[in-house]
Amino acid sequence: MTSTPPDLTFPQGFQAAAMAAGIKPSGRTDLSLVTSSHDCMWAFAGTRSTTAAACVTRNRALAGTGAPVRALLVNAGNANAATGEGGARDNAGMADAAGSVLNVPAEAVLTASTGIIGHRLPMDRVLSGVEHLPDELGTAAAPFAQAIMTTDTHPKTAHATLSTGARLVGTAKGSGMIHPDMATMFAFVFTDAQVDQAALRAAFPGVVARTFNAVTVDGDTSTNDMAAVLANGLAGPVDQAEFLSALEGVMRDLARQIAADGEGATKLLTVKVRGARSEAEALTAARTCCVSPLLKSAVHGNDPNWGRVIMAVGRSGAAVNIEAMTVAVQGQPVFAGQPLAYDAAQVSESMKAAEVVFDVNLGVGDATGEAWGCDLSAEYVSINADYTT
Amino acid sequence: MTSTPPDLTFPQGFQAAAMAAGIKPSGRTDLSLVTSSHDCMWAFAGTRSTTAAACVTRNRALAGTGAPVRALLVNAGNANAATGEGGARDNAGMADAAGSVLNVPAEAVLTASTGIIGHRLPMDRVLSGVEHLPDELGTAAAPFAQAIMTTDTHPKTAHATLSTGARLVGTAKGSGMIHPDMATMFAFVFTDAQVDQAALRAAFPGVVARTFNAVTVDGDTSTNDMAAVLANGLAGPVDQAEFLSALEGVMRDLARQIAADGEGATKLLTVKVRGARSEAEALTAARTCCVSPLLKSAVHGNDPNWGRVIMAVGRSGAAVNIEAMTVAVQGQPVFAGQPLAYDAAQVSESMKAAEVVFDVNLGVGDATGEAWGCDLSAEYVSINADYTT
Repeated sequence: MTSTPPDLTFPQGFQAAAMAAGIKPSGRTDLSLVTSSHDCMWAFAGTRSTTAAACVTRNRALAGTGAPVRALLVNAGNANAATGEGGARDNAGMADAAGSVLNVPAEAVLTASTGIIGHRLPMDRVLSGVEHLPDELGTAAAPFAQAIMTTDTHPKTAHATLSTGARLVGTAKGSGMIHPDMATMFAFVFTDAQVDQAALRAAFPGVVARTFNAVTVDGDTSTNDMAAVLANGLAGPVDQAEFLSALEGVMRDLARQIAADGEGATKLLTVKVRGARSEAEALTAARTCCVSPLLKSAVHGNDPNWGRVIMAVGRSGAAVNIEAMTVAVQGQPVFAGQPLAYDAAQVSESMKAAEVVFDVNLGVGDATGEAWGCDLSAEYVSINADYTT
Repeated sequence: MTSTPPDLTFPQGFQAAAMAAGIKPSGRTDLSLVTSSHDCMWAFAGTRSTTAAACVTRNRALAGTGAPVRALLVNAGNANAATGEGGARDNAGMADAAGSVLNVPAEAVLTASTGIIGHRLPMDRVLSGVEHLPDELGTAAAPFAQAIMTTDTHPKTAHATLSTGARLVGTAKGSGMIHPDMATMFAFVFTDAQVDQAALRAAFPGVVARTFNAVTVDGDTSTNDMAAVLANGLAGPVDQAEFLSALEGVMRDLARQIAADGEGATKLLTVKVRGARSEAEALTAARTCCVSPLLKSAVHGNDPNWGRVIMAVGRSGAAVNIEAMTVAVQGQPVFAGQPLAYDAAQVSESMKAAEVVFDVNLGVGDATGEAWGCDLSAEYVSINADYTT
C-alpha cells in the first residue's frame, strides 16, 4: 500500500481545488472540485442500496446517456440522503452551479456527497463555495484527497504509469468515515490514457467487484457509495489490457487502504479464497469472512480460531466440499477436511502483524477471490455509539 | 418475555435429565436428554450453512424419512463441527448409545451439539454420561434448559396451555452463546397435543421464519443452529389453528429472549416493518436493521440516528418508495419521505429502556415483518476477541 506523496499530481489536463465551505463542523476542507480540460470517457458504479442518495441516482442516469463529462464536485460532511425532493433539487443545484462557473453543461458535472444522512445541505455555503473553487484550481492531488475525507485517518491515493507514459491517479475515501453516519466509500480514478468507453464500461464492473466491492468494514452499505474512472485521452492511445491491469492495481491498492483504515481498525484482514465454483462465489465467501464480527473479534485478539472461518464460509452460501476444504492462518495450515495439529501460541504470535491473511480452499472448483476487512475493536463501538447526540 | 419458573414441568409423557459429563471446562451441566414415553410427530429446521455440523445433517435426513422420534440428546461445550468423518461417526455414536439405553431405534433419537468448532468430542465421557442419564429422568424443565446453555446468562423457556389442556413447553439457547465459538441457537418445543405431522411440517417453516430466524445478534450463522417441535399426542386432539398460534407465541417468546441475551447486550432491539411488498422482504428489511453494527452501536449509545435505518433498509434490497417511507423511534415519527423535526434529547432519553423499537413503513405494499436483535457494546468485542487462546 502506498501513502499519499505530497507532490503527487493529477494526469495531464486534470486540475483540482478544495476549500472549507463550512459543511463540516470541524472547519476542515469539505468541498472540492476536479476538472478536465477535455471531455472524459468514463465509467461509474454506484451503491446497490434501494435508498440511494440523489448524487448516485443522478450519476447513474448520466452514465446511461453515454455523454462525456468534464468535472466532479464533491462535498463531505453531509450525505444529502433521505432528504426528499428538496435534497434532489439541491444535488442538481450543485451540478448547475459548477457547470455555470466552468462554462460546461450541468450534465457534464458528476456530484458526490458523503456524511450524515437526513439533513439538508447548507446550499448557501455550497453555492458560494462553488463560485470560489475555480480560482483555486491546481495540479496537486493531495488537497482533493484530503477534502473528500470524513473520519478517515489519512488521505488515500494510488497511482500507476503505463509504458506510453499515460498515468492513472486514484483517490479514495474509506470506511474510516462512518463518523458522520456510515461507511460511505468513494473511489475516483483519473487518467490521461485514451480509452474506448464501451470497453472501459464492459470491464469496470468486474474491476469494481474484485476491488472496491471486496472491501467490507461492517457489512453496512452506504446510500452514497460510488466508484468512477474518468479518462481524458490527452496522453494518447494505450494498450487496453495494460490499462485495465493498471486500473485494477490502483483500485486494489485503494481498496486495501480503505479496509486498513476502517473505524477502530488496528490491522488489515485479508481472506484469499480459491477452489471455488465461480469468482462470484469466491468473492462472496471471502467477503462473508471479512464481515463476520466473530472472525473480526478473533483477529483483534490474535486468536487463531479458524472455526469462525468454517462458520463464515458456510454462512456465505458458496458451494463447499468440506472433506476437501483447507484453511491456513498466516501460512500455517490448520484445517484439511479435519482439524490439524499446530502450535496455537506460535500462530497467535504471527497474527500480531499489520495484516492477517487467511487462505481458504473450498475444494469444489478453480475460481479465486480475495476480500479485505479489518479487525473489530472496542473503539469501533465507542466511535459509533453516539455521533448525532 | 418470561423467565424460567423453577417448577415448570414438561408436558405429559416427556421427561428430561442433565449432567456434567466433563465436556465444558467449567464443570457445568453439559449433557442432557429428553425422552417421550410415546412416539412423537415432529418438525425440524436446521441451519442453512453449507458447512453444517453432523447433528444438523443427520436430523435433516431423519426428518426426510417421516418416521417418529422418541428422544433428543444434546451436548453443550463442543459443536462437533468441521471434525470430518470421525466427527460424523461420533454423532451417530451418540444416537446409538441413547437408543440402546432407552431401548428405541437409534433413528428415533435426535442429536444436537453446540460449542467450539473443530475439536473432536470426548466420546468416552459422552458415552459414559449417556449410560448414566436415564437414571436421572424427571419432569422438571429447568435442568434441561440449563444444560443446553453455553454463554447464555440465563436459561430460556416459554410455555402455553391450549383450551383442551394440552401444553407446549419450549426451551432455547441463544446468542449469548458465542463464547465457545459462535451464535449457535437451539429452540426445542415439546407438546402433548395431538397434531397432524404433515400439517405441522407445512406450517413450521413459516413459524421459524417469523420467530427463530428473525433473531440476529451479529449476522453470523452457526454450523449447528436448529429448531424442532416434538408432539407426543398424549393430551389428545387440538384445534390446529389454536395450536399453531400457541406454537408461534412460544417460539416468538424464545426468540425475543435469545435476542435480549445476545453477547454483551444491554437492551433488546426490535424492528417492525410494514408496507412491504412481501413478508419475506419485510423480514429481510427488519433483520438487516437488527444486524447493522452501525444501528446497533447507535442503539447502545441511545442515539436516535434514524439515518442508519434508512441505510440498513436500503442495503437489504427490499423494495422501498422513499417518498412514502416513514420511520419512528420509540413511537416518535422522525422521517416521512423527508426528515421531520423532533426533540432529539427527548427521544434519546426514551431509548434508555430495556427495549428500543423502530417502526418502519416501506410504502410499497401491505406485508409486515418483525425482527429482534440487541445493541452492540464494547463488551461484545472483549468477549469474542480471545476465546481459544
